[in-house]
Amino acid sequence: MLHELESLRLIDHHCHGVPRRALDRDAFEGLLTEAGAPHGTLGGSLFDTQTGFAVRRWCAPVLDLEPHAEPADYLARRTELGPDEVNRRFLAAAGLDALCVDTGHTPEPLLDPAELGRLAGADAYEIVRLERLAEDVAAAGTGAAAFAGEVRARLADRARAPGVVGAKSIAAYRAGLELAGERPTGAEVEAAAGRLLRGAGAGAGAGADAQGRDAPPRVADEVLHRFLVWTAADLGLPVQFHVGYGDADADLRRGDPLLLTDLLRALAPTGTPVLLLHNYPFHRHAGYLAQVFPNVFVDAGLATHNLGHRAPALIAELLELAPFGKVLYSSDAYGLAEFYHLGAVLFRRGLARLLASGAEQGAWTRRDALRVAGLAASGNARRVYRL
Amino acid sequence: MLHELESLRLIDHHCHGVPRRALDRDAFEGLLTEAGAPHGTLGGSLFDTQTGFAVRRWCAPVLDLEPHAEPADYLARRTELGPDEVNRRFLAAAGLDALCVDTGHTPEPLLDPAELGRLAGADAYEIVRLERLAEDVAAAGTGAAAFAGEVRARLADRARAPGVVGAKSIAAYRAGLELAGERPTGAEVEAAAGRLLRGAGAGAGAGADAQGRDAPPRVADEVLHRFLVWTAADLGLPVQFHVGYGDADADLRRGDPLLLTDLLRALAPTGTPVLLLHNYPFHRHAGYLAQVFPNVFVDAGLATHNLGHRAPALIAELLELAPFGKVLYSSDAYGLAEFYHLGAVLFRRGLARLLASGAEQGAWTRRDALRVAGLAASGNARRVYRL
Amino acid sequence: MLHELESLRLIDHHCHGVPRRALDRDAFEGLLTEAGAPHGTLGGSLFDTQTGFAVRRWCAPVLDLEPHAEPADYLARRTELGPDEVNRRFLAAAGLDALCVDTGHTPEPLLDPAELGRLAGADAYEIVRLERLAEDVAAAGTGAAAFAGEVRARLADRARAPGVVGAKSIAAYRAGLELAGERPTGAEVEAAAGRLLRGAGAGAGAGADAQGRDAPPRVADEVLHRFLVWTAADLGLPVQFHVGYGDADADLRRGDPLLLTDLLRALAPTGTPVLLLHNYPFHRHAGYLAQVFPNVFVDAGLATHNLGHRAPALIAELLELAPFGKVLYSSDAYGLAEFYHLGAVLFRRGLARLLASGAEQGAWTRRDALRVAGLAASGNARRVYRL
Repeated sequence: MLHELESLRLIDHHCHGVPRRALDRDAFEGLLTEAGAPHGTLGGSLFDTQTGFAVRRWCAPVLDLEPHAEPADYLARRTELGPDEVNRRFLAAAGLDALCVDTGHTPEPLLDPAELGRLAGADAYEIVRLERLAEDVAAAGTGAAAFAGEVRARLADRARAPGVVGAKSIAAYRAGLELAGERPTGAEVEAAAGRLLRGAGAGAGAGADAQGRDAPPRVADEVLHRFLVWTAADLGLPVQFHVGYGDADADLRRGDPLLLTDLLRALAPTGTPVLLLHNYPFHRHAGYLAQVFPNVFVDAGLATHNLGHRAPALIAELLELAPFGKVLYSSDAYGLAEFYHLGAVLFRRGLARLLASGAEQGAWTRRDALRVAGLAASGNARRVYRL
Repeated sequence: MLHELESLRLIDHHCHGVPRRALDRDAFEGLLTEAGAPHGTLGGSLFDTQTGFAVRRWCAPVLDLEPHAEPADYLARRTELGPDEVNRRFLAAAGLDALCVDTGHTPEPLLDPAELGRLAGADAYEIVRLERLAEDVAAAGTGAAAFAGEVRARLADRARAPGVVGAKSIAAYRAGLELAGERPTGAEVEAAAGRLLRGAGAGAGAGADAQGRDAPPRVADEVLHRFLVWTAADLGLPVQFHVGYGDADADLRRGDPLLLTDLLRALAPTGTPVLLLHNYPFHRHAGYLAQVFPNVFVDAGLATHNLGHRAPALIAELLELAPFGKVLYSSDAYGLAEFYHLGAVLFRRGLARLLASGAEQGAWTRRDALRVAGLAASGNARRVYRL
Repeated sequence: MLHELESLRLIDHHCHGVPRRALDRDAFEGLLTEAGAPHGTLGGSLFDTQTGFAVRRWCAPVLDLEPHAEPADYLARRTELGPDEVNRRFLAAAGLDALCVDTGHTPEPLLDPAELGRLAGADAYEIVRLERLAEDVAAAGTGAAAFAGEVRARLADRARAPGVVGAKSIAAYRAGLELAGERPTGAEVEAAAGRLLRGAGAGAGAGADAQGRDAPPRVADEVLHRFLVWTAADLGLPVQFHVGYGDADADLRRGDPLLLTDLLRALAPTGTPVLLLHNYPFHRHAGYLAQVFPNVFVDAGLATHNLGHRAPALIAELLELAPFGKVLYSSDAYGLAEFYHLGAVLFRRGLARLLASGAEQGAWTRRDALRVAGLAASGNARRVYRL
């Protein structure tokens, strides 16, 4: 049974693109964890982490190296093959049926969904990042009075585009997840849009950078995050939320999914699927929400490859309260193509360990184990996103 | 040793009644987890959960089915036997010496403590739900000035009744667990009682339902929860608190037992036993409180059967800091008779796995393992409730 | 490999002294956990805890008893040998290369760093407790205007003394860890110092004890904790923070290391090493901080010996996100000499179990396992404290 479970094809319902450029050691270490940059001589190498060891174990063979290749050898081989070949190999190795790409975070040019899908031999879909769309509307010079209507129109437009299957909120990185349950009024949204537009166009004021240039608009307002979520729900789009683990820009305390309770309670009657992403170290909180709210789904993306050898513990804890019909797979790969593959390998193995050991100990049958593994691997994603 | 540990008789120090009626699939799934209703086509079957698999594994044989019976077969057999026989079988199978029944939650008629005890072949005791008693006082038309005295008198009366051994607070479901340490003054209680009575008798106002009927009084006031706890403590009653895991009506964040720290510190000198129920996912927090406060006890009821195959992890984590003399067993069974049995099986097995593997690895002796298992199974409950 | 890992010599980067006096059973149980006093007949013996069983298992042989000696026999043998011999044996058994002693908590006379080092056969260093130093300045009659300068001067003086290698903040026990990121202004510190001095010299007021004597000054002010941390950072001293688990005096909720996020973000550019101590049950939060901030380090002191047989689970969870270059060993031993030895045994065994099982399962090589074990055992401490 382990073999069957470890060869399941997956739908990666939340990932990003990877750059085309070559990466030196500092750039690679900077993308390896959520640290954002190597720790230097005080903190030691970020290869000495669960994710670093997992890359050497599971990714080295994809580059024709022995498992556990030394970091320098691994990086040399990566350079030798070049970014196109590296990207191609890891996406092909991931064993994906489909991937859903969040296209809203592009600090540098990244492979787009179509390119990722082609390399992966998988269907490619797109997730619209809500705050990015709102910021684009603000940057286009829309006034506060027209802001809500323009956001609605643009999102409706995106939702009709082929391949767009969901929306994503990064409230956790901005105002935090403590969003009220009520749909904001038009007046509230207009006032919040006014604040956003004033902040962005403030010349030498708060909205300007050190050089006095106007800063781009940045949505970090409880009313606007909430307005965006309701707008997506009105359009029938499943809504993903960044939850928990992420880089140091976030305040992790404000990323506890329990902060979303009021909003989840309000969204439940609409039937809008809500997908809580990452969740670590609040994954047990997320599992609870997935059990008590009929429209809440969870994954363990990003954390799965960061925990490496410990990923099975995470998956087992997530599946304490979360129903098997409410758990999805995602890699949350960004920057390093390794993570499409590594997330997939570790998710399959973690799920397989839980299900196979349960079957051996008589907790469930082999048949049920394979059936619910199929739900988590792809069935739930197909149902939620109507793929 | 495993055999001895897995056949320990238990005291179930916190459970509820079960209805007499037959249950169809929707009703059964609605009682199977804390979801409150089936998840429908979007979320999938609630049988595909740890508790669903555990019911099929451990409860099917009690109904003469093979382990892992399919849900439809399980429900058909349940219907065939009828609710009286099903209730009888599961209560008898639980292996209880005694049970303590919270009689304060009766959305429909339920078996009473005496009936439960008879079916279980166990001594039956009663736990008085404090908010229910206060709401009964308010509904009886007591004025604000007389409220505190009437609550005290009624609770004293209940405390003298044969079989009443403790009180329970559901503050976690109402105002939350952040209760101040100080005993509220008479004036504070009178003011809070006034608010309660005005809310309940408000005609078409906040206290009325959609049809304009007066809503029944509902205690959800920090002062009143606290007053009730102190009133119970004054009468020498052990006080149970709902903590953590429960249905979507609660805001789980407000159910963290650390929020009780000030009140626990104030109650410690009185020697009033405080019993933190359920606790998941805050069970490590609860274990800490059980270690540092001499009068605080903990259990893992409700969560034990909901975690099913993962219950051993929960029990092991609870017993990281909680002394073995401070841990009790409860099922928190409600609605499905299965849970009296399932909670007992999973608690015994989880405790047995921890203690037997520790003995095998030389962490403690067989003799100590059996001794502390006896404390958790029944000894601590006998001591706390003076059974 | 297990053998090599279990015989690693350690640097105990955070511990306290032990008294010279003999301890009766109540005194011993009072020091055995964070309960502070035995639980009495209601709560049962504190020997029936993970730490109690671990003492009987691992410490009895050091006193020439069989493993699992009964508590009475253990205490009798301890009395027979006398405190000097007991202290000598446990410190020698710990297998330390060096220890760093927090000398700021001395409710009774304790062995000093030099004595501890001599008994352990290890280099001894000192950690200056910041709040204690500030309270000494206040008690010496320094006025509010001169307070900051005097604290700076005294700490600079201490930092120059041989063997002083770091500072420690107990903000978690006082104002809590929610410290702002900004360095407080001189005016803010002067105002806070004024409050401290008025509180301490208040005669029959708030600063006086029940007998009307002036209470000693007690730093419990967000501004002062923060001022002390920045003062230490300015002097290049690594700063330890009490985090999480401790006795009932603390409010555990205010000890979550995520509360330090703003301050950690502000300290990161200074390169000041910040060491988060204990961390349980927030150790996964601490691991996250150690990953995303280049200057943040973590340990599992105090919790390691309190979790006893469960310590491996704690160490594995800490090392989910924390890089191996960011984890240190500490015992946090205080009061009982047993804990220098017990912490060391349990840390080595827990780390060994994680690393050896990972090597067996192919997650990393034996060579890497031994290398990163060396970092956690002593390499990281040498680098951070420049020993």
